[in-house]
Amino acid sequence: MKIHPVIIAGGSGTRFWPLSRKSRPKQFLPLGSSRPLIVDTALRLQPLARVSDCYVVCGKAHAAAVRRLLPKVPASQVLVEPVARNTAPAIGLAAAVIAQRDPGGVLAILPSDHHVANAPAFRQALADAAGYAQQGALVALAVAPTRAETGYGYVQLGARLGPGPGHRVRAFVEKPDLARAKRYLAGGKHVWNAGIFVFRADTILSAIALHLPELARGLDALAAHVGKRSFAGALARIFPTLPNISIDYGVLEKAKNIVVVPSAFGWSDVGSFAALPEVRSADDAGNVLGGLALPIDAQGCVILGQTHRPLAVVGVRELVVIDAGDAVLVCPKSKAQEVRKVVDALGARNLKRFL
Amino acid sequence: MKIHPVIIAGGSGTRFWPLSRKSRPKQFLPLGSSRPLIVDTALRLQPLARVSDCYVVCGKAHAAAVRRLLPKVPASQVLVEPVARNTAPAIGLAAAVIAQRDPGGVLAILPSDHHVANAPAFRQALADAAGYAQQGALVALAVAPTRAETGYGYVQLGARLGPGPGHRVRAFVEKPDLARAKRYLAGGKHVWNAGIFVFRADTILSAIALHLPELARGLDALAAHVGKRSFAGALARIFPTLPNISIDYGVLEKAKNIVVVPSAFGWSDVGSFAALPEVRSADDAGNVLGGLALPIDAQGCVILGQTHRPLAVVGVRELVVIDAGDAVLVCPKSKAQEVRKVVDALGARNLKRFL
Repeated sequence: MKIHPVIIAGGSGTRFWPLSRKSRPKQFLPLGSSRPLIVDTALRLQPLARVSDCYVVCGKAHAAAVRRLLPKVPASQVLVEPVARNTAPAIGLAAAVIAQRDPGGVLAILPSDHHVANAPAFRQALADAAGYAQQGALVALAVAPTRAETGYGYVQLGARLGPGPGHRVRAFVEKPDLARAKRYLAGGKHVWNAGIFVFRADTILSAIALHLPELARGLDALAAHVGKRSFAGALARIFPTLPNISIDYGVLEKAKNIVVVPSAFGWSDVGSFAALPEVRSADDAGNVLGGLALPIDAQGCVILGQTHRPLAVVGVRELVVIDAGDAVLVCPKSKAQEVRKVVDALGARNLKRFL
Repeated sequence: MKIHPVIIAGGSGTRFWPLSRKSRPKQFLPLGSSRPLIVDTALRLQPLARVSDCYVVCGKAHAAAVRRLLPKVPASQVLVEPVARNTAPAIGLAAAVIAQRDPGGVLAILPSDHHVANAPAFRQALADAAGYAQQGALVALAVAPTRAETGYGYVQLGARLGPGPGHRVRAFVEKPDLARAKRYLAGGKHVWNAGIFVFRADTILSAIALHLPELARGLDALAAHVGKRSFAGALARIFPTLPNISIDYGVLEKAKNIVVVPSAFGWSDVGSFAALPEVRSADDAGNVLGGLALPIDAQGCVILGQTHRPLAVVGVRELVVIDAGDAVLVCPKSKAQEVRKVVDALGARNLKRFL
């Protein structure tokens, strides 16, 4: 069985400013290792899939960076969205392209900006999922929760499917409040939806046809141009007309043939600077350090400096301090989500060159 | 009456790192205005004294900066200490030099790194002090306390001297604990010792002869060389032998002919970054800002950025954030005194080029 990895790299997040910029979103940052997240995403598939097997869906502004960072991905497998849409059009586009080459081929949909600590366990889960996918299921890889997280969607597990790891789905659950998140954690019946999906190209296209017929019509029109010179023009014409909707909401939550494969592979979506201690090693005081960071009586901080400039942080706890070279950020970990306010302020103050 | 201002610029403080460095101590920083503190110190004397009347006592490493910043001070009035000593030798040196030119001349001893908000009130206090000095008193300008400060020495006022502002001294008091500082503030009988002194050259030399005979012998030996080519050599030979002691402890606390002139001229010794709100205007949220500072939901902070690099500070209170260009500091205001630990750490980590 051949797996076609589809790396979704459409993100333009602002939560890692000043490290991230419009031209350098989170997936291009070396947050989990010395390599950009998107490169780790491709490399951790080996030997289950090769980098040259990967497809990448990304925006225009980021195509050059994708090609530079992943030179082994053939140019024809870098699918450039003419405009930003949500995950359903991005995944549909990849499925339409792959279906022309390998209609029954199995796609593994992989966010480009997540971290996985245990790559062998991750590949095992993917292989398990591919087994269900080959039999016609829409498979979601899910993660056993390790804390009462209120920032993620959950999946309530249904009956187990025979001896394998797969489960039916009882329900998709929106982001819960803390009390419910605590119950989910204690109950053992809910898992995190990690945004990692495995299905055959024809399976997902059928599901799109059933649940998102407008998207399906656009993809059908595109399919006629795949592999031809007319493809780029057709993509530029058709893609902007596709509905802006997520694959979760538009398809998976409505489909019947869903299987969930829960696993534990040290997953993090690296949602903000506050998540870096999940993915990087810390010093004895729990500080994640980079560059010429000088923590003095500092605890639980994220201090990422430049290599040539001392970044001294004295007598604070749970603070994020980032020197990106041309901009500096200070923010409590608990308010790391509010970094986007800086991006707004820069726009308002005519400092767009720092966005 | 001619006043000879003597600006004491021997400080090599580390509490303003990373703005201050060994080669650029606090007195050379524009902390109170757009001008370095030492320049403000000279300019605020006008018209009571001219900049060209000033003497400056400083260390070897800082003489060039003094001459550059205060070009109107004649070269012969920049007195360069061959080694760092305390204030008694520095003041004694100035007195010995000035006594050769104007034995009964009045010296005004001025720390180079303090801030004065109300210059006319300051000059009035200096003029009042000079009146007592001319009659043979050792005069200390003192400041009515505005808070229960535990970081300063206090002077307990004695009887008032006739109709003028001068008081006798009941006692010099070391830095008090908070309870005593609160009593001093409430009682109205204690004032801050601001380190500003006024006396005739011959008066202070007599007091030194009485209380610090070892220093007096050195100064006598130096006096023979003042105005001669042999002065620099004599200074280099004699100065290192002088006792390392402050004028307060060595002379003033022992002398009988002390007069204190209390006043209120918006004084601050700008003791650390935490003191900047005393000397610079703040925004509506109490933040003192510089350069491209971007406070967002920040209160009571000191945020000094570079003009070309955004310094975004989100969701914090009472924090000091300084981007000095080649080094960055983050520290709570309440721990601003601990900045010296950074200087220690830089030394220990072979980063001496940032000292």
